[in-house]
Formats: sequence, structure tokens, C-alpha cells
Amino acid sequence: MHTTLTVETRGKGLHEITSAVRRAVSALLERDTSQSGSASASGLCVVFIRHTSASLTIQENADPSARRDLEAWLERLVPEGDALFTHTSEGPDDMPSHIKAALTGVSLSIPVIDGALALGTWQGIYVWEHRARRHAREVIVSIV
Amino acid sequence: MHTTLTVETRGKGLHEITSAVRRAVSALLERDTSQSGSASASGLCVVFIRHTSASLTIQENADPSARRDLEAWLERLVPEGDALFTHTSEGPDDMPSHIKAALTGVSLSIPVIDGALALGTWQGIYVWEHRARRHAREVIVSIV
Amino acid sequence: MHTTLTVETRGKGLHEITSAVRRAVSALLERDTSQSGSASASGLCVVFIRHTSASLTIQENADPSARRDLEAWLERLVPEGDALFTHTSEGPDDMPSHIKAALTGVSLSIPVIDGALALGTWQGIYVWEHRARRHAREVIVSIV
Repeated sequence: MHTTLTVETRGKGLHEITSAVRRAVSALLERDTSQSGSASASGLCVVFIRHTSASLTIQENADPSARRDLEAWLERLVPEGDALFTHTSEGPDDMPSHIKAALTGVSLSIPVIDGALALGTWQGIYVWEHRARRHAREVIVSIV
Repeated sequence: MHTTLTVETRGKGLHEITSAVRRAVSALLERDTSQSGSASASGLCVVFIRHTSASLTIQENADPSARRDLEAWLERLVPEGDALFTHTSEGPDDMPSHIKAALTGVSLSIPVIDGALALGTWQGIYVWEHRARRHAREVIVSIV
Repeated sequence: MHTTLTVETRGKGLHEITSAVRRAVSALLERDTSQSGSASASGLCVVFIRHTSASLTIQENADPSARRDLEAWLERLVPEGDALFTHTSEGPDDMPSHIKAALTGVSLSIPVIDGALALGTWQGIYVWEHRARRHAREVIVSIV
């Protein structure tokens, strides 16, 4: 069972998708129940982003300063304009975006228990955009 | 099929949970066999930590010096007291803990073959505590 | 449903396995169809590497310069000969290899839709070898 979300990002930083993923999970479970006649309200949710210059992360959903510091720290670790980069034809934010995606990952696996994502109280799901421009990012939500 | 482990950590560093996860997997598979009458001894084990200041990792289980060096290296990469941090109200180890968790991940997926975790010889499963104080960490073990 | 690939690496860097994983997925789905009489052409593919000094990553599959820059950047972040390392008995590339594997991960989860891996256009699957010598790496491909 899969569904695809399109996430509109507006430059570098964390874009929360927790509610969108919760809705996708509910819709997938409902579809399954109506098709099979029995509810399988337990399983695994996998979130997958189909890009190499944006990533997915689970982070603190309370204080926005945590996300700002996270973004600022990673930007300092992988700055644009590094003399080491040769892959520069698509702009100064291109190579840093691949490195940031490699360090933070393109899929998340979250248990589904009694029909709900088993996230901790302070855990939110985020698309982490690493390009400077706006993008429409394809995110697949799967239940197995 | 899910079960929750409570892992008591004692400050920063790697806390091995391989045996606890193996036991959880065996118990889940046994419960499944007795309920369904047939064994599904093959599948996927997902381990998920419900926190944003601790993470999960698979690392070398032989020489403890490898884990100590790993911890020391990450501590140097993300030190407390960085002037860049604004999210400091919960203490100097708070923001570094979020960054470390983002870099190392909150879920692991491990194949289950013939009823056993298909870990390599030298692979152990660890909760990586990033806070200085003791914590009780909730870890969900799922089989799908 | 699982199958194991042996990936021969030739020193540090990214070794593409996208085609090998696609073939493994097709073979597993075919075997399932012939055994059960019905196709379950949708699900989740998990790729798992049974080592702590090599990792798995999804990265840009077009321009090789992106992979070279990625490797060069990580090598500079985690260089051999760091005075901090005490775990040095297996050679100068040993401790960096564990750190690199911890930062980049040992498993990948990719949706399977209509019998095919739902990778984005520019996404390739790579074994990231962190040791200097040649290695034969065991990679398990699972479908759930």
C-alpha cells in the first residue's frame, strides 16, 4: 500500500510533514480495511524521498530554534564554495546538497500500532531541503 | 507485531542492546506461531527509538575501543558550547544531542532469516545516548 | 523473501549495485508468484550490508564527479591518522571506516510498486567501501 505526497519546499531547511504522513497512513489503512473486510491496523510505515538533494529526518517538533540550529550547523559543516568540489555545474548549493542528503538519509521507518504512527511525543517528520530554490519533492508513504 | 524495550542509559555513549533485541524477536515470532499455527520465521525486524536526543546504530561489537573512539570523534565534531547554538535552555548537551541523532538515525532495519537476525559477525545493535544524564529510552522492536 | 549479493569492492569509494538489486527484486517477486500462484508485486525492498566498515547509500547516478566529491569530502571529514584514535591495530583506515559507516548507515528501505523499485530518476544504490583494500561485501536484499 503506497501513496505519494508532493511537498513544496521553499529553500533550505526543515519542512514538517508529520500531519500529511499521518493522514496518508489513515487513508491507506482505511482503504485496506474496506478492501479486505478486516483491519490490519498494525505494521510499518516507510517514508521515502525520491531525490538526492533533499532528505528526510525525524526531529524535535516543539521549539523551532532546534531546527534552525540544526540547519545552521549542517550548513557550516558542508558550506557552499568548498574548493574541494568539482561537481559545480548545477550551482554552488548542488554538491553540498548531495553530501547533506548522504549524511541524513532518504528513508524513515516508523512502527504503526493500533492504526497510529508510534512516534515519540517530541518527534516530528521533516523533509530537509538542501537546495536554495523552491522545489516540489515527491515523498512516498508506504504501509507494510 | 511489536514490543517495547526500556533501555536505561548512563550518560553519553553506546549501550548495547543486541541480546535484548534478539530476545524480543524470538518472543514475537513465538507468539505469532502459537496464534496462527504456522511459523513465519522470515521477515524484517525494525528497531525504532522514540526520542530526538538519542539514536540507534549498528557498530563493531568486538573491541570496545572502537565504540570509545566513535563517541569521542562525534563529541569533537558536535561539541557542547558552540556559539552557533541558540537552543540552549535545556542545557549545553541538548542541541548537540539533536544534531548527533540527526546524523546517526532513529531506526534500523535488519532482515530476519530462519528465525534469527541476519547480522554480520561483528555487528552489534546500540542505543547511542547523546545526553549527559541517565535516561530511560523507549525502543520499539517490530517484525513485519 | 531474501537473497544475498556478494559485492566485490576495490578500495574506498561508491560501488553501484542498482542493477544487481533490481535483478534480485525481480527474481524474488517471480519466485513468490510461482510459489503462491498470485503476484504480490507491491511492498518494500530492504537492502542490508552485513559489515561495520562499509555502508549503503542512495546517491546521484548521473555525473560521476558527484560521487568523487562525496568520497573526497567524507575522507577529509574523517581522515586516517587522527591522533584521537586508539583503535588502530587493524590499520589506519579501520577506525575512519567505522565512523563513516555510522554516519551513512547500513540499511536502505525502498518502496516496490508494480514490481519495480520506486527510485527517483537520479537515484542509484551504492555500496560505500570505507576500507582501502579489496573486500567481498555481503549485501542482503529482502522483500516484505
